[in-house]
Amino acid sequence: MTLEALIEQIKPLNAEAMEKAQDHLDDLTKPRGSLGVLEDMVKRLAGIFGEIPKEPLQKAIILMAGDHGVMEEGVSAFPQEVTPQMVINFSNGGAGINVLARHAGADLICVDMGIAVDMPDLPGLIRRKVAYGTKNMTKGPAMTREEAIQAILIGAEVVDDAVQRGVRIVGTGEMGIGNTTPSAAIIAALGGFAVEDVVGRGTGVNDKQLQIKIDAIKRALEVNQPNLADGLDVLAKVGGLEIAGLAGVCLGAAAQGIPVVIDGFISGAAAVIAGTICPQARDYMIGSHLSEEPGHKFMLDYLGLKPMLMMNFRLGEGTGAALGMTMIDAAVKISNEMATFSSAGVSESID
Amino acid sequence: MTLEALIEQIKPLNAEAMEKAQDHLDDLTKPRGSLGVLEDMVKRLAGIFGEIPKEPLQKAIILMAGDHGVMEEGVSAFPQEVTPQMVINFSNGGAGINVLARHAGADLICVDMGIAVDMPDLPGLIRRKVAYGTKNMTKGPAMTREEAIQAILIGAEVVDDAVQRGVRIVGTGEMGIGNTTPSAAIIAALGGFAVEDVVGRGTGVNDKQLQIKIDAIKRALEVNQPNLADGLDVLAKVGGLEIAGLAGVCLGAAAQGIPVVIDGFISGAAAVIAGTICPQARDYMIGSHLSEEPGHKFMLDYLGLKPMLMMNFRLGEGTGAALGMTMIDAAVKISNEMATFSSAGVSESID
Repeated sequence: MTLEALIEQIKPLNAEAMEKAQDHLDDLTKPRGSLGVLEDMVKRLAGIFGEIPKEPLQKAIILMAGDHGVMEEGVSAFPQEVTPQMVINFSNGGAGINVLARHAGADLICVDMGIAVDMPDLPGLIRRKVAYGTKNMTKGPAMTREEAIQAILIGAEVVDDAVQRGVRIVGTGEMGIGNTTPSAAIIAALGGFAVEDVVGRGTGVNDKQLQIKIDAIKRALEVNQPNLADGLDVLAKVGGLEIAGLAGVCLGAAAQGIPVVIDGFISGAAAVIAGTICPQARDYMIGSHLSEEPGHKFMLDYLGLKPMLMMNFRLGEGTGAALGMTMIDAAVKISNEMATFSSAGVSESID
Repeated sequence: MTLEALIEQIKPLNAEAMEKAQDHLDDLTKPRGSLGVLEDMVKRLAGIFGEIPKEPLQKAIILMAGDHGVMEEGVSAFPQEVTPQMVINFSNGGAGINVLARHAGADLICVDMGIAVDMPDLPGLIRRKVAYGTKNMTKGPAMTREEAIQAILIGAEVVDDAVQRGVRIVGTGEMGIGNTTPSAAIIAALGGFAVEDVVGRGTGVNDKQLQIKIDAIKRALEVNQPNLADGLDVLAKVGGLEIAGLAGVCLGAAAQGIPVVIDGFISGAAAVIAGTICPQARDYMIGSHLSEEPGHKFMLDYLGLKPMLMMNFRLGEGTGAALGMTMIDAAVKISNEMATFSSAGVSESID
């Protein structure tokens, strides 16, 4: 499979199915449109699947992990060893995403895309390391163009495998100490924003570290001069391996014709890359929460997505996507379980 | 039971339990505070119950129905007969709230507080009609002070009964064609807002009906001159029977020491009344969604509540509260199921 072949598989939504879904929604015992986002969701699912799903979708969170050469600059409040430590925690079921994925009834699929150390064979971990972390982007490209493509195609493959096992909706998630730095670089570059406006405190850096982070991003953009018309170039130069993998998850979901629920800031950066490489893929993306990271809202605007949840999360891992999936379940149930005006004997609007 | 005795039962939260909850949250494998609202929720539950609940709480949505004399003025897009029709729909399980209460694992308790017609004996319907609807508030008080107190105490009794059966969290919901009109009157009066700023289209009135609605509210406030220092007076003069009942649910929940999840605009008006009668009761209230009704955000501000969900709902019935309850379940699970830094062998922040 090549990246071009992957993109070619991405088709427009089914407009006729969306219209039929609208008619159905308008027949249910509620004022038209009064269930807002849930109704939008039903229409979108109809457009994606060609009909309204008859029952809640089988779900998986795809959590990709990678390390970042830019950590050398001192951009994070946590040491790099936390990346593999947390991957072990995911495997043991003790992290935030484990709890919320179980709450949502979603499988958790972890992928080592580029952790800086060798990982043991862990239950639930797929080992597809492209490199032992990215290179320090303040001194040159984070990865080669070939590595970026390889990582994207791995992401698409992981979706493919999940769909083979019956999964019908995926959510994105990530782990990678330092990864708000490349994410901020991506949205600053592609959105044309000042670095200061899109950078945040990540896991909780202090004022001094925040300034180091801002400087590092500015240097990375200056040194690499990414081609803003080429999402792949931006990804390779100032991105990350887990970000590339998740961009592949977004493209792969669209290619497979299933929705992808976008988590927070790092997942948002991956979605921005995917939406730049293939604008059509955005129709398969569903926003979940609005992150505390100040740059996240710019990503959602860039993609035309709206957050459903205001939870003040800044954890990542797919935690917001997992909660978002519970809203999509609710939408499917609304469509399938509500009575119609005629069946319930309820009078319609006077108008 | 008198209203005074009910209010006397409402105690401050347990500050020590909240501190202990904070320590526990900070020990879990995530950056401090990174699960935002879920962490706030855990702390609040600890303050309410004296400890973090060990498992998700048994839930009920209390949906109160009533009719409104102000309907004579032409303030709604739907005819008044829809109130009893929808109550039958609730009993048959076909309305939006039935679907979302099931989704949340919550019981649905319907109460006839003041429907304009006699209701048959329906499964799940508690018949506690105070009057056959309110009087037309543009011509005088919607109800007497005694009726308002009676309705509040019924609300508190319904909570009491639910708690006896094991319920540990309630959500508010309502049905009452025309009831955005008294709700807007309440927040305009108590919040000191211009009527135009807090009135919305309810179930979907057109421009002409919207002007009728604004005029009706202005006349009601002028004719009745409610005493703004007296929540009960505002409730009686420009409120509704289901709104009074739900104010009683808010006060009753606080008196019983359980949280109450506030739904949208009409539930918000009831919470505003409860919070005016007894400010301490606000500590037991949890915000759920932000309604499409423009006045809802002013209610949440008045109460110091924050919405978790941005679903663009304008249905009522308790639909937003039901979805909010699923977030509270998630909070309880986070607190009980996540690993600690030491148990998982994860390094803490460098700081």
